[in-house]
Amino acid sequence: MQNYAQTESTSKVVHRVKYEHPLNEHTRMYLRIEFLLKQIKNCIALEYAGQHRVLLTSIIELLELCDQVKIKNEIIKDLEKHKNKLKKWLGVAKVNQDLLKNMLKQITEISEELLRLPRIDADFLNDRLLTSVRQRMSIPGGCCSFDVPMLHCWLHKSQAEKQHFAYKWWSSFEVINEALTILLKMLRESGQFMEFQAVKGFYQGSAEKANLLRIEIPVKYNVYPVVSGNKNRFSIRFMNFAEDESFPDIIDFKLALCK
Amino acid sequence: MQNYAQTESTSKVVHRVKYEHPLNEHTRMYLRIEFLLKQIKNCIALEYAGQHRVLLTSIIELLELCDQVKIKNEIIKDLEKHKNKLKKWLGVAKVNQDLLKNMLKQITEISEELLRLPRIDADFLNDRLLTSVRQRMSIPGGCCSFDVPMLHCWLHKSQAEKQHFAYKWWSSFEVINEALTILLKMLRESGQFMEFQAVKGFYQGSAEKANLLRIEIPVKYNVYPVVSGNKNRFSIRFMNFAEDESFPDIIDFKLALCK
Repeated sequence: MQNYAQTESTSKVVHRVKYEHPLNEHTRMYLRIEFLLKQIKNCIALEYAGQHRVLLTSIIELLELCDQVKIKNEIIKDLEKHKNKLKKWLGVAKVNQDLLKNMLKQITEISEELLRLPRIDADFLNDRLLTSVRQRMSIPGGCCSFDVPMLHCWLHKSQAEKQHFAYKWWSSFEVINEALTILLKMLRESGQFMEFQAVKGFYQGSAEKANLLRIEIPVKYNVYPVVSGNKNRFSIRFMNFAEDESFPDIIDFKLALCK
Repeated sequence: MQNYAQTESTSKVVHRVKYEHPLNEHTRMYLRIEFLLKQIKNCIALEYAGQHRVLLTSIIELLELCDQVKIKNEIIKDLEKHKNKLKKWLGVAKVNQDLLKNMLKQITEISEELLRLPRIDADFLNDRLLTSVRQRMSIPGGCCSFDVPMLHCWLHKSQAEKQHFAYKWWSSFEVINEALTILLKMLRESGQFMEFQAVKGFYQGSAEKANLLRIEIPVKYNVYPVVSGNKNRFSIRFMNFAEDESFPDIIDFKLALCK
C-alpha cells in the first residue's frame, strides 16, 4: 500500500495525490487484486519486521478474491474489448502502426497464457501453512505462536528458505499480475486529466460510461475524496483529513474519466 | 512476530526454537496481547513497506481484545497473586532482600498506575482513521485506496507525521505494556527447563496447575508442537513441518512448567 501510493512533486513544487474510484464491479475487483499483488511484491523479500504478515495476509486475501470471481475469464473478456478498440486504428495514417501491432500482439499472447492457466488456487489448496494461518486470521491476535505453531516454526527458518516459499506462492499469480498490469495500464491511459473546481467540497458530473475515475488533489488542501457513482453519473464529496481545520470554499482538482 | 520469535544458538551450535502454550484463558489472552504489542513496537517507525498495515491491524485487533476482556483488572489481580508469593520470601536469610523489596515496589507501582488508567479505548473511540480501516478490514483487499480514501491520504503524509499518529496511539497502551512485561517475565521465570523425550512424536504429562508451558525444540528435527491441555494435564504431539520427511522415533526436547 505504501509503495502503491502515488505522490508527485512537479516543477512548481505542488504535491498532489492521485485517488482512483472504480465505477463498476469488474474494475473494483481489478483494483483490489492489483493492490494485493503490489503488497505481496513489496514484502516478498521478507527483509523487515512485519513483512511476513503482510505477505501471508495478502496471499490469503487474494486467494479469497480469486475464488469469488472467475477473474481469469473476466480479464480475457476485457482484454478482448481493448483489442477491438485498438484494431480500429489499424491502417490509420497518423497512428504508429508498429507500436499498435506490438500492443495487439502483447494482448493476444497474454490472453493465450491466461487461457492455459489452471484454476488459480489449485497449487494452494494443499498448502498447510497458508491454511493454518487462514483459519486463525479472523481472531484478534490469532496468529500468535501457540495459535499457529507451524507459522512459528516457519518464522525460524532462514530468510532464503522463507523466500523460497514466498516466490513459490507468487509464481501462481505471475500471469494474472502481468495481464492485469497490461489491462490497467490501457484503462488508465484512456483518460486525460482535466482541471475542475469543487464548490463547498462538492462536485458532480456525468461519467460517460467510464470504468474508472482518477482524481488528482493538491495535498495543500488536506482533503480526501469520497466518491459515489456508476457508469452514468458520479459525485465527489471532499472531506477534511483533520476535523478541526477550516474547509476551503473552492478546491481545484484534476479529473480523468477512463473507459 | 518476526522479532518475537526466540531463536537461540548455544555454544554447541545447536539451534533451538521456543514455543509457548497457555493452559488457561487469562494466559492465552496475555500472550495474544503481548504478541500484538510487539508487532506494534516492531513496526511503529513505519520505515519499510507494509509496516503501516501491520501497525494498523495490530492496533485494531488489540482494541478488540481489550474491549472483550477487562484486561486491566485481570492483570492487577494476577500481579497481586505474584506479590503474595514474593512476600513469603521477606526475611528469609538466603534471599536477596533488596532485590525482593525492589520487585515488590515495582509491582505495587505498576498496579497503582493500572488502577488510575482510564478505560483503554476511550482515546480511540473517536479516531476516524482507525474506525474507517476497521470497517473494511474483513473484506479481502478491503483497504484499497478507494475503499478507505482517508488511509490513502494518510499514507501520503510525511514519515514524521505518520509516526506522530503511531506514537499517539501507542501511548494508550504503554501502561498495559509495562505491566504485562513484568507479569509475563515473572511467569516465565517461575519455570525451569528440564530434558524430556517424546516417543513416536508424542508426550503427555501432569501440568501441576501451571499457567504456561514452555517448550524448547532443536530445529534439526524440523518439527513443531501441537499442544492440548489444562491446569491438570497436557499432551504434546510433534508434527513434521515438511510432509514428506521421515519422522524421528525419539525427539529430545526441553519443557518448563510456569505457574
